[in-house]
Amino acid sequence: MSKKTRVLTGITTTGTPHLGNYVGAIRPAIQASQNTQMESFYFLADFHALIKCHEPERVEASRREIAATWLALGLDTQQAVFYRQSDIAEIPELMWLLTSVAAKGLMNRAHAYKAAVQDNLAAQEDADLGVTMGLYSYPILMAADILMFNAHQVPVGRDQIQHIEMARDIGQRFNHIFKEDFFTLPEAVVDQRVAVLNGLDGRKMSKSYNNTIPLFEPEKKLRKLINKIKTNSLEPGEPKDPTDCTLFQIYTAFAEQADVDAMRHRYAEGIGWGEMKGVLFELINEQLRGPREEYQRLLADPGYVEGVLREGAQKARAEAAPFLDRLKRAVGLGPFA
Amino acid sequence: MSKKTRVLTGITTTGTPHLGNYVGAIRPAIQASQNTQMESFYFLADFHALIKCHEPERVEASRREIAATWLALGLDTQQAVFYRQSDIAEIPELMWLLTSVAAKGLMNRAHAYKAAVQDNLAAQEDADLGVTMGLYSYPILMAADILMFNAHQVPVGRDQIQHIEMARDIGQRFNHIFKEDFFTLPEAVVDQRVAVLNGLDGRKMSKSYNNTIPLFEPEKKLRKLINKIKTNSLEPGEPKDPTDCTLFQIYTAFAEQADVDAMRHRYAEGIGWGEMKGVLFELINEQLRGPREEYQRLLADPGYVEGVLREGAQKARAEAAPFLDRLKRAVGLGPFA
Repeated sequence: MSKKTRVLTGITTTGTPHLGNYVGAIRPAIQASQNTQMESFYFLADFHALIKCHEPERVEASRREIAATWLALGLDTQQAVFYRQSDIAEIPELMWLLTSVAAKGLMNRAHAYKAAVQDNLAAQEDADLGVTMGLYSYPILMAADILMFNAHQVPVGRDQIQHIEMARDIGQRFNHIFKEDFFTLPEAVVDQRVAVLNGLDGRKMSKSYNNTIPLFEPEKKLRKLINKIKTNSLEPGEPKDPTDCTLFQIYTAFAEQADVDAMRHRYAEGIGWGEMKGVLFELINEQLRGPREEYQRLLADPGYVEGVLREGAQKARAEAAPFLDRLKRAVGLGPFA
Repeated sequence: MSKKTRVLTGITTTGTPHLGNYVGAIRPAIQASQNTQMESFYFLADFHALIKCHEPERVEASRREIAATWLALGLDTQQAVFYRQSDIAEIPELMWLLTSVAAKGLMNRAHAYKAAVQDNLAAQEDADLGVTMGLYSYPILMAADILMFNAHQVPVGRDQIQHIEMARDIGQRFNHIFKEDFFTLPEAVVDQRVAVLNGLDGRKMSKSYNNTIPLFEPEKKLRKLINKIKTNSLEPGEPKDPTDCTLFQIYTAFAEQADVDAMRHRYAEGIGWGEMKGVLFELINEQLRGPREEYQRLLADPGYVEGVLREGAQKARAEAAPFLDRLKRAVGLGPFA
């Protein structure tokens, strides 16, 4: 294995990427992938999508949109390994090897599962009502995602730290039982500075709040959505506070520092909301126009995207397959001769 | 798919086959595989072995012994499909598709899991102490084993009926959610007449009682073990009751009906235990001599056995791979183009 730090990121494929995803996750990840001291693995976590979504059309559309998004935004797939989880047959196999050693007690402590149980109990229902085995056991799938490629680092939000700890726990247990350091134990990397964008209604931009601005909406639609962003009722000419202002927050995420400073002055000078929305639209639209065209081109050329992903899968499997062979031998499942 | 009834049997690979396995499972299965109205699938359930056994050498040895045993006893691998579960990468993949729809509540009701919980609670321990996710979720792996090949029938003991019901439940749920009858719902076939052999101490022959007669022990060892079978203290010449006599029971499992009747007379006439043991040894030894030689030959030629199993895996995968592709498309995980 090379000595570079290997960083692995999974992207769940259930939604359409929005500005919040772009600023908080996609843009920094694509930047990070340009660091030649790092080896970056990015994958469409489409096996995970099945837990949350039993609508095939949505899963399918989301995979295509997300793949096209990352490529349109310039992910360098020569430098980074970019693949679909569901193309790596080794991952569910490894999941089973890990399942056979993972403690059930560990899964009982998973946040997502505990939340579901609490909701059920609060509603005086059976604790496991509506809980699928997918929801319950996906931390083992995540462990397989990570351990399969011996990732050193996994960038995560706070709510995901536990999953990385579980991957460490399961990997360590396997190493211990089978008496060899097969797996690198991954570390969670929490970027404290991760930009969180607010949505149309001022709450955190999130699919579940239905307040998102999809990243690659056509120009007209983008302008319309930006015009819908909630503001207070101050008139043009009245001084405005940029703090807690969604428009300013989004502006900051896209503008140069000098422009942000200048905008702060214009707020003090009483820039009107209508004007500010116009400025914000122009800024974002300018930055996204090129990628948006590329995105549309890629969506219209699924064969090309398929090819890129297959190439990525090939690179990933070139590593996963011999490693899995080694692991299978270690647990007693090698070939006879 | 052909219209023949398809029968699927998994063989857990944790022990060395003994006379009880032979009479109760292997011999009838090999006979059944000669029925040309049936399509028989037999597999070494080595993924399952990992739940019970974290000793790679034992898993490895058991797989070799069991494969050699079935071949030595004449399993016709042109007629039957004979493969190692761990060679079919499609099975763990399918397991994940099923996991994402299977209800956790279903697993809570599994006998093996419930027994473990009861033991823990009786010992005033945490309910899940020492329970692995393997023990908890293997009914889904069994469902994948069965549904992967759309088996109609699965011959099982009484204690396994629940697993087949679970496979039906999970298959049905998948069919329902994804709106097509992808899976044949399997039926458990419980053979009431299954011969159960007693072991050295008169209890059911079982690895866990440490009272087994391994199937292919060398002649001398076989004679020694048969001589160890527990009898009562009646002297030669005293009439004996064949009922509840382990020697007679084993004799019955190997002899022709006419010989069994004759032996019943000899019991009434007072055949001595020593003589009876000699007769039993000769009978079994005669039947097993040929297969035993073949077994030894096969154990010494792992390359040959490997080849046979790979051929079986190829046949199995020729069916599993396109079916899995179809299922993946159905849940939204198809190729883009």
